[in-house]
Amino acid sequence: MTVDVEVICIGNELLIGKIENTNAYWLAKQITALGANLRRVTVIQDVIDEIAACIQEVACRKPRFIITTGGLGPTFDDKTFQGIAKALNQKLAVNADAYETVKRKCTEFAKNHGMPGEVEMTPPRVKMAIFPETTQPVNNPIGTAPALRAQIGETVLYALPGVPAEMKAIFTESIAPEIRVAGGDCVFCECSVFSDGVVESRLAPLIDRVMAEYRGVYVKSHPMGCNRVELHLTMMSKNGEPNGWLEKAAEQLRALIAENGGKTRT
Amino acid sequence: MTVDVEVICIGNELLIGKIENTNAYWLAKQITALGANLRRVTVIQDVIDEIAACIQEVACRKPRFIITTGGLGPTFDDKTFQGIAKALNQKLAVNADAYETVKRKCTEFAKNHGMPGEVEMTPPRVKMAIFPETTQPVNNPIGTAPALRAQIGETVLYALPGVPAEMKAIFTESIAPEIRVAGGDCVFCECSVFSDGVVESRLAPLIDRVMAEYRGVYVKSHPMGCNRVELHLTMMSKNGEPNGWLEKAAEQLRALIAENGGKTRT
Repeated sequence: MTVDVEVICIGNELLIGKIENTNAYWLAKQITALGANLRRVTVIQDVIDEIAACIQEVACRKPRFIITTGGLGPTFDDKTFQGIAKALNQKLAVNADAYETVKRKCTEFAKNHGMPGEVEMTPPRVKMAIFPETTQPVNNPIGTAPALRAQIGETVLYALPGVPAEMKAIFTESIAPEIRVAGGDCVFCECSVFSDGVVESRLAPLIDRVMAEYRGVYVKSHPMGCNRVELHLTMMSKNGEPNGWLEKAAEQLRALIAENGGKTRT
Repeated sequence: MTVDVEVICIGNELLIGKIENTNAYWLAKQITALGANLRRVTVIQDVIDEIAACIQEVACRKPRFIITTGGLGPTFDDKTFQGIAKALNQKLAVNADAYETVKRKCTEFAKNHGMPGEVEMTPPRVKMAIFPETTQPVNNPIGTAPALRAQIGETVLYALPGVPAEMKAIFTESIAPEIRVAGGDCVFCECSVFSDGVVESRLAPLIDRVMAEYRGVYVKSHPMGCNRVELHLTMMSKNGEPNGWLEKAAEQLRALIAENGGKTRT
């Protein structure tokens, strides 16, 4: 069965257009390559009530995984764990494992910057170790703030930092293997046919015909200007692409386009 | 009063990581520059039920504007108007104005490609003129498919094509002026202070102090690695930035960072 995933990106910087949402793009590629189905990406502000409401809404759709990005640091604007606590109706408390991890990382950091000895665990440092009661810290191989794993019914929620390098490292180390196991042998297959000289409205019935004959193949048309259209064929299949099904669909599409006076390239 | 806006991006290509969501990034910049508040961006698949459900969910939050992108073309995978019809519980019917526009554009296009005379209005061409009953076509200065404007209570919904050039042209021509009028004189102000040599967890209490003293100023910290942090100060204000309020907050922040042994640059 296909594994449904939803991503929630938390951060005002995304909604004021200060930075591009490269995290969502990277996650979409990874999740799809793992044979899972990314159903939605929701981008929200650094507001506790917003975070809590969004997690509850997404959890209601019962995806197998929810992945949040952003809001895990030591500063005021990092509110993700508070939002998760509110969504789960749980208290926040210092997590002993997370506390030790943050302390060790801060001590190492200080030592590497010429300040040996035990560091003071100031409130902002302790903040990174304050977790909703029943949630667990997840190893962050790069940064200081641990990530979080929570179970909401049959849904697993992961909260990752917004810093791309940290987000990617934690996804690769901890989440990708779990999605792979949950998804079994689902594989995502794709190929493109580039059509020249046939307007999109005339391609439409050809696409319909190919999709009717080749069940499971989805054809999406992307106009590229000047009468050129990319036709992107995709399918999700168990145990790889059965008998070159996708390639056969692409061949038929190429033939139909040629019959209609168009040129194609792959 | 600040004008709330929500954006819904429709397209499997965004959720499989085939293309980056540059439309959301561009819209976020524009909406913010107009002094409006982009509350959420939701990215969903080309599925009628998904589109309908998402529009209903977003409409429940009563933003002043909802802007959708994608799914307006002639092919099977373009399902936005069907989704809107379902969300509004309305029938779909050929809109006479849109029909004439599509016919005129297709005729012009054919003429420019050496095929003069009246074009045949095939079903995929007619499809671009099929609107939910009470909605209106909006001029598309670049492409063939008209955009859509609908009123849902006090919320205005615009449906734009996914092709970036068309989306931008329609936003600029038809939506930006309407947001500007609705928002009155709200202006978005921002500046950055780059801090060197103070770890983020030590910056946290300094940020708290500045935000407590300078009401309305929001400070977001963006770690840039190697103990460097960008502190991004923003505020939304009527009639521009009052008395250099944001710049004064930035000055205090710079002074506090210096007191804590850090260096800053603007």
